[in-house]
Amino acid sequence: MKKLFLFSISLLLCLSGLAQQELGRGGGVQVDSPVINPNNSVTFNLLAPNAQTVTLVGDVIRGLGVEGQSVSMVKGENGVWTYTSSRMPSDLYTYSFMVDGVRTLDPNNVYVNRDVATITNMFIVGNGIGDLYLVNKVPHGTVFKTWYNSPTSPGATVRRITIYTPSGYETSGQTYPVFYLLHGIGGDEEAWITQGRTAQILDNLIAQGRAVPMIVVMTNGNISQEAAPGETSLGLLKPTMGLPQTMEGSFESAFPDIIKFVESTYRVKTDKANRAIAGLSMGGFHTMHISRYYPNFFDYIGLFSAAIGVSTNQIQNPIYENLIPTLQTQNRNGYKLYWIAMGKSDFLYQRGLDFMKQLDDIGMKYTYRESEGGHTWTNWRLYLTEFVPLLFR
Amino acid sequence: MKKLFLFSISLLLCLSGLAQQELGRGGGVQVDSPVINPNNSVTFNLLAPNAQTVTLVGDVIRGLGVEGQSVSMVKGENGVWTYTSSRMPSDLYTYSFMVDGVRTLDPNNVYVNRDVATITNMFIVGNGIGDLYLVNKVPHGTVFKTWYNSPTSPGATVRRITIYTPSGYETSGQTYPVFYLLHGIGGDEEAWITQGRTAQILDNLIAQGRAVPMIVVMTNGNISQEAAPGETSLGLLKPTMGLPQTMEGSFESAFPDIIKFVESTYRVKTDKANRAIAGLSMGGFHTMHISRYYPNFFDYIGLFSAAIGVSTNQIQNPIYENLIPTLQTQNRNGYKLYWIAMGKSDFLYQRGLDFMKQLDDIGMKYTYRESEGGHTWTNWRLYLTEFVPLLFR
Repeated sequence: MKKLFLFSISLLLCLSGLAQQELGRGGGVQVDSPVINPNNSVTFNLLAPNAQTVTLVGDVIRGLGVEGQSVSMVKGENGVWTYTSSRMPSDLYTYSFMVDGVRTLDPNNVYVNRDVATITNMFIVGNGIGDLYLVNKVPHGTVFKTWYNSPTSPGATVRRITIYTPSGYETSGQTYPVFYLLHGIGGDEEAWITQGRTAQILDNLIAQGRAVPMIVVMTNGNISQEAAPGETSLGLLKPTMGLPQTMEGSFESAFPDIIKFVESTYRVKTDKANRAIAGLSMGGFHTMHISRYYPNFFDYIGLFSAAIGVSTNQIQNPIYENLIPTLQTQNRNGYKLYWIAMGKSDFLYQRGLDFMKQLDDIGMKYTYRESEGGHTWTNWRLYLTEFVPLLFR
Repeated sequence: MKKLFLFSISLLLCLSGLAQQELGRGGGVQVDSPVINPNNSVTFNLLAPNAQTVTLVGDVIRGLGVEGQSVSMVKGENGVWTYTSSRMPSDLYTYSFMVDGVRTLDPNNVYVNRDVATITNMFIVGNGIGDLYLVNKVPHGTVFKTWYNSPTSPGATVRRITIYTPSGYETSGQTYPVFYLLHGIGGDEEAWITQGRTAQILDNLIAQGRAVPMIVVMTNGNISQEAAPGETSLGLLKPTMGLPQTMEGSFESAFPDIIKFVESTYRVKTDKANRAIAGLSMGGFHTMHISRYYPNFFDYIGLFSAAIGVSTNQIQNPIYENLIPTLQTQNRNGYKLYWIAMGKSDFLYQRGLDFMKQLDDIGMKYTYRESEGGHTWTNWRLYLTEFVPLLFR
């Protein structure tokens, strides 16, 4: 046993040596970063002995309670630059370092987040809403990336999709309700499961008894893409924001392909009372149009910071015609929840108000949730934690 | 339609603006990196106007045909540092930049690779073996991250596992053979699906008719972990190499829990002729011990750069006792393939030779594949592409 142990240790050292060598690290200073302190303050550290300036940037700034878009870090004698925040609100944050003008990831944090074409580091401050974004000691669902046929799509007919099944799905023999969850512009079928922490939020809400076990289907709303960047035969290309055919009707037209795939492949309930749909920003636009164009599909509709235009006459694709009459049909058909959420400083705030005025004019009921903040993942994760408990009750 | 288009564009610009603002980028120079040129040379670019030195580091270096562990990049007038390689062998490569001594990811490449506690960028050079690592226009399998009960484990009893099912699994009604694929020290259930490109390799080999459709089960061999770092209630902790209980018998003892889970949850064939097992480094050690300790479970055994000790008397855990007699039992029971692969410059090379001498001494047949290179993912991906076509024939 001792010899095996020694062999293991030497193997370990040898491999560690290889790793360090390959990475071109060197230096003897051990650094941890970020360090989330017991009082919810956070300390950032970066070893950069030769740097002239190091600043902390990213969406972390809004949690620091400071002005501006970056904070300066201070160099210690050991060459480690440091910044310690005051108490941060519980949330998921992303950040990078700017080292003499070059944006740099934190080499001591392996947790990263892709937002369109940018990778940043991430961390979670708990003791609040962030606890729902953490993996806790609760039963976990299964997350899988699979492909579905979409003969109605104008381009690719096989498209990638992310699916969450709740803990117990594999063995329960039961059927489950389905929640279709749509991303925003620049996102794809990876957005909600990574940036949105959907699996963690669902695991936690279900374990707490605050949500019923459900299947969550995370689609790719960019109909010109087969799949997220890197997951297609286009290679490891640089993601872009300006994809064609994102808000011109094709995704909405082809949406029944997704429902058909889900309802023929998984053990799910297939009636309106067991279907929900929601989306953020562009996904809120898609959600509004899909739910009224197929006005008897969904009992639960959620618009998170929805990118909704207000006038039907600005749209000429057939799927966007007859906005008011189809909303009226949807209203007559009935539904259990039409949930609209918007941040007070969202650049789409007025559009949200205008849309609700339209709904008021035709007597269509909705629940309005106004939050602080703007067009951010902080709000979309928050909305998810509030919307999911309302479903399938 | 035009108004909707204009609205979409303004939404896009607004969101792009937000994104850039958040990221603290600025600067008007557009940079692409890496650029894989038609002749398989690769150009790396980094905007760093204030930097004194920029070098390229990482496992990319071995593909450049240069001496040393880094290459210097050259600054252009626009502040962009550049390096163009000569023709690179087709493969998957990882790299980083060192900017004035600070390791930095390439801000223009969103594709990253985690190796234990280090994130680097990655790219693939095609026109050769690398074509098997790319996503091609072929039918794609499904990749699941799920959890299984392991009552035999000493610690956690619910453990995370990665499963690949081949294209068509959901609807074929057929049963499939199962290939258990084990990672090395410092790895986990993420290693083979990310660094190993297992899904792409299987998709491509199956589409080419070079492999039979099979299910691949990627385990976590660190029995003290429930799951990969970040996927447990320990939080977003820094991964380490020196985990306890990695090579002391517990994982091997608890392995039947995994087989039981797979064979009771998925549509699989459950006989020896339809079970294969292989692993890299520590996973090769696990594979050798599991396949002889349960000497009638597997018809296909693969040791990739296996970290095998040579003497039974150095091990006192019951599972490691009786090495030779259990190998002899395995030999008598029969199997179709015992495949051993090792790189010529692997630090475990002599251990491989010594183990094969032991097998020779008891007349136990194996196939030996000796490659160039050492203890690297380049070799492990290569071995996977060669081993998988031999299975279940």
